Formats: sequence, C-alpha cells, structure tokens
Amino acid sequence: MNNNERLIQLLTASDQFISGEKISEELGISRTAVWKQIKKLEAQGYEIEAITKQGYRLLYAPSPFQADKVEQVLAGHRFGHTIHYYDAVSSTQTIARELAEQGGKEGIVVLAEQQLQGKGRMGRNWHSPYAKGVWMSIILRPATPIQLAPQLTLLAAVALTRAIRTVTALEVGIKWPNDILHQGKKLSGILLESAAEEQQLRYVIAGLGIDVNLGEKDYDQELLQKATSLRIESGKPQQREKLVEAIMLELEALFNLYDQKGFQPIAELWESYALSLGKRISLTTPQEQFEAVPLRLTAAGSIVVRMDDGSEREIYSAEMGEIKQ
Amino acid sequence: MNNNERLIQLLTASDQFISGEKISEELGISRTAVWKQIKKLEAQGYEIEAITKQGYRLLYAPSPFQADKVEQVLAGHRFGHTIHYYDAVSSTQTIARELAEQGGKEGIVVLAEQQLQGKGRMGRNWHSPYAKGVWMSIILRPATPIQLAPQLTLLAAVALTRAIRTVTALEVGIKWPNDILHQGKKLSGILLESAAEEQQLRYVIAGLGIDVNLGEKDYDQELLQKATSLRIESGKPQQREKLVEAIMLELEALFNLYDQKGFQPIAELWESYALSLGKRISLTTPQEQFEAVPLRLTAAGSIVVRMDDGSEREIYSAEMGEIKQ
Repeated sequence: MNNNERLIQLLTASDQFISGEKISEELGISRTAVWKQIKKLEAQGYEIEAITKQGYRLLYAPSPFQADKVEQVLAGHRFGHTIHYYDAVSSTQTIARELAEQGGKEGIVVLAEQQLQGKGRMGRNWHSPYAKGVWMSIILRPATPIQLAPQLTLLAAVALTRAIRTVTALEVGIKWPNDILHQGKKLSGILLESAAEEQQLRYVIAGLGIDVNLGEKDYDQELLQKATSLRIESGKPQQREKLVEAIMLELEALFNLYDQKGFQPIAELWESYALSLGKRISLTTPQEQFEAVPLRLTAAGSIVVRMDDGSEREIYSAEMGEIKQ
Repeated sequence: MNNNERLIQLLTASDQFISGEKISEELGISRTAVWKQIKKLEAQGYEIEAITKQGYRLLYAPSPFQADKVEQVLAGHRFGHTIHYYDAVSSTQTIARELAEQGGKEGIVVLAEQQLQGKGRMGRNWHSPYAKGVWMSIILRPATPIQLAPQLTLLAAVALTRAIRTVTALEVGIKWPNDILHQGKKLSGILLESAAEEQQLRYVIAGLGIDVNLGEKDYDQELLQKATSLRIESGKPQQREKLVEAIMLELEALFNLYDQKGFQPIAELWESYALSLGKRISLTTPQEQFEAVPLRLTAAGSIVVRMDDGSEREIYSAEMGEIKQ
C-alpha cells in the first residue's frame, strides 16, 4: 500500500478529525508531505475539511466509475452496450467523433473521470472535475434528415430529465433547448454535434455533462448562483452508474417511440418538462438580442415565440437568458 | 527533355498519323517502349488514336489546371481566393474537411487533377480521370441554422448551372436536388457535407464534380447513356479555369443575395432551372420507393410532391429516378 492509499485508509476509518501529527507519524513522512498528500487526494475528487489544531476530516470520497458493471446491465441494449472508459481525456466529444468517423456503431459511449478541455455550447468550456460528474458522449446514428436534427436535441433533454427524476426524485425541468435545471440552477448540459452528407445525418454525437457529486467547493461563488449538483440538491451522493443506466434506457425507450410514432409524443413530453413556455425570456441569436415569450415547439423541433408586437416568430438557434416571469 | 516530353512534342507537331516506327527512331527506343509511353500519356489525360499500319494520332491534349492564375482573378473575393492544388488525392472532400476542422476560412478550395477515391452521393464512387474534370471542394461557413442546410445544396446547384450556361452556352438544367443535366445526361454532381454544433452549422464542404473535357472513351457504354461531358455536348474542349472562376463568382453573387433577401429569390432561380417539376418521377428514400410529381420547394429547401391519391407530401431526402413525363 502506498502513502496515498494509507492516507485514504486513515481518513475513512473515522468521521472524526485526525491530526496532521498523527498522520505524519503513521505514514512516516513530514507534516509538509502530509499536506501535499492531502492536496493530491483533493485532485482525485476527495473532499477534506482542514481545521487548524484539529487536523483533517474526510467529507466525501469518490468512487471510480464501474464501466464494466454498466456494460453488463446494458448488454444487448441500443445504447451503452460498449463504454470506452478513460481516466482523463481532453474531451469525450472529440474521442466519440473519431470513433464515429471510423465507423463506430450506435450506442457506443465514451466516458471519462475528468475532461481537461470539456466542451460546452457556443464554444464555451465545460468544467469537469475528477470522478464527480458524468462526462460522456454517445454515438447516435438516427435515420433522421438534417432538417429534423433539432428533434434529437429535445429528445436527449427529455431522456436526461426523466432519468434524473427517476434516480434522484428531484423535480428537474428543461430550459430550452436542453439545459436541465433544479430550482433555477443548472445541473446538466447537452451538446449535440452532427455530421451530415446531403440531407442525411451520418452520425450525431450527444455530449452529456451532469454535475452529479460536485460539492460547493467545486464551484466559485459566482457560479454557485447559477449552477448546482445532484448531490447538493438532493443532500446525498448519487450513484453515477445508476444514472448512466437510467439515461441509456430512457434514450432507448424514447427513440423507439420516436421511430414508431414520430416526434409528436416526444414534443409533448418535452413541453411537460419545459420551464420557459409562457414566460418572458431574453434570446440571443448570432444576429441580435431581444425578449419574447416561448409558446410551443414546431414539428421540426424549433421553438415559436411571441414578440412584443404580438407577432409570432420561429427561432432556430439562440441562447436563452434568465426567465423574467 | 525526357521521352515523355519528346513524344508529346512529336504528336502535337502534326494532326496526321505518325508511325510507331518513326517514333521509335526519333526517341531511340523500341516499338514496345513506344507503346508503353503512349499508355503513360493516356493515363495523363491525352487521347491518342492508334490504327494498325498508320500509327498514332493525337486527338486531345490536356493542360494542367492553372491554379495560380485563378487565385489572381479571385483575389479579394469570397470564394476561390485560395486554391490548394494537388496532382492526385484520395478525395478533395476529405482534405477540405480536414482544413475546415483546423479552422480553414470560407472560400478555400481544394482542387485535384485526379481523385483516387472520389466521393459521390449515397456513398457511391465518383469517377475522376486525370486533368479532364473539375474535381474540387469548397469550404463554406454560412450563418445558416442546420434546419435550413438544404437551401445551400440548392444554392450550389443554381451557381453551377449559371456558370456552365455562361461559359459553355449549353442550356443545362437541374435534377432535384442538385445534379446538372444536359439533354437528359448528367454532367455534374454536387455533394454537400455539413458539420453542426447544436443548431448552428460549423462548416459545410461543397464538393463539385464536373465532367469538363472527358471524351467518350472515358465512359463505359452503359454510363454513356446517362452521363456526358461539356466537351462532348459542346463539341469542343472547355477551359477549366474559366469555369471555376465563373462558379466562384456565381456563388458569391448568390450568397450575397441569400444573405440580404433570404432563400426566396434562390428558390425562384432554382425552380426556373428545374427539370423535374410537374413531371412524374420515382423517388427512393431510406424507407421506401414510390412515384410522385414534384410540385415546388418549401421555404426550408425540401421539395413538395403530389402523391397518386392527390395528397401532398414533403420530401426531405431521396434519390430521384428517371423523369417519366
């Protein structure tokens, strides 16, 4: 057992504080070396309270994602049957895209404990600390024409919402098109990247980032006003494996529904979880910024909003701001 | 001057037959070596008539594409300002996509004398013999949402139609969505590949294959019923440089129109060149095959067809068969 493992053992053995001196003795290393070991554990997702004269106390210990168990549960299913599991990657999205270009089949998942250059919408970064979230990308190969690609974005948001509700019992909702919120704070984002040849989608990579077990220390003060995790909201750590399994099964059920009955039932589900319908919001498109009231989805998956002059307008792509009531 | 160059000089010096024996003497090589040199020239795009006891006669000599001159003409323009010119590539489409992924700007063109694995629609091969066609891919970066990507396919077909009409005076037309035909035979194909992030297109690669100076020997008998070249149809070789310049300027004019007035004027132009509107055709989608009569384009760039029961149906993606009148 190395020092890292011995330190974990010491910390997990008790829910009381253990002094730096005691650790120093047990491990046979200096107090400074103890502090360095503590920092190393924090980078691995451990949360450790440090109080002068009392020492260190373990608040939260992460557990590595058990990809093989999830693969077993999902064997023979449409999504999640194969999981490419990594410790750290630049971005799961990039790896999944490469796999898709090489012919990787539908349902392959790329999941990493940590992303060094996680991608969010509109070229933003996505903060993905070690072992505390679900950072994954799924290869989809739908027989959907390019005009209807937005339907898939909304389908993915419905799957994620339902999975989170089932696993955590939190009543999360959707901010158009596909952010998942709880009591106004963002828990999860979805990024769909598509490759098409003429009107036919060749593949779609669905990137899902879910703040599962992040603690308050994982957010800066400004971010804490807008973002949160399932652990913070539900008051307890959540099993990432259960969540991934639920997402894959929801995706399968919704895609089966979509393949058989088209987009209408998906749109109805989406609208039932939507947080912004009928409420005044700001919209930022590549061309302009304005306020409007989202009314409904179109058959193609765009959103229709009511403008201030009472006219209706179809929005294809925009960033939605805060809900203003 | 090497044997290859000396042979070209001998053949171009006269429009009469020159005997194998004469060539053998002039070049100081065997008759068999002469035959091998002739075969080499044919692979370079030369067409040489060979008649027993008369010898060889030059029918057609290709000239290399002068990319630098075209770049000069198009300097400062939106498309064609930069041409990556290659002798032979697997596919110009693949190279253009890599350039776009690396941030290559709009209007960059990849053009090759020959494609070893040229790509057509629906995963088909595209026959691209040496120095006789325009085999090129153009990077587009339109601010178009993914739902409207089909509009770009139709815009490209209009640009190509107008450029061919201007340069060759041939009254070519469009078979939906974007094949260019002359008197029922295909002259050119377009393949648009798109990459999108959420609803926003990141880039589009427009691949254009134009059979410019192919001779009848470049087609097998079956293909000759369905395909042809500008040289065959117009009865004389065409300057590829002029054609590429005209295409780039048409694309620029049409994109300016599109950016200012939207898709409507583009749709009207497309319909004015369309060969299949109002005529009975067969349609093959990924799901089924049926006959119908194309009526008009939609605002998003799909096509509306009239079914046999009189109902109308919107077609997003299909292969259109022969026109049945």
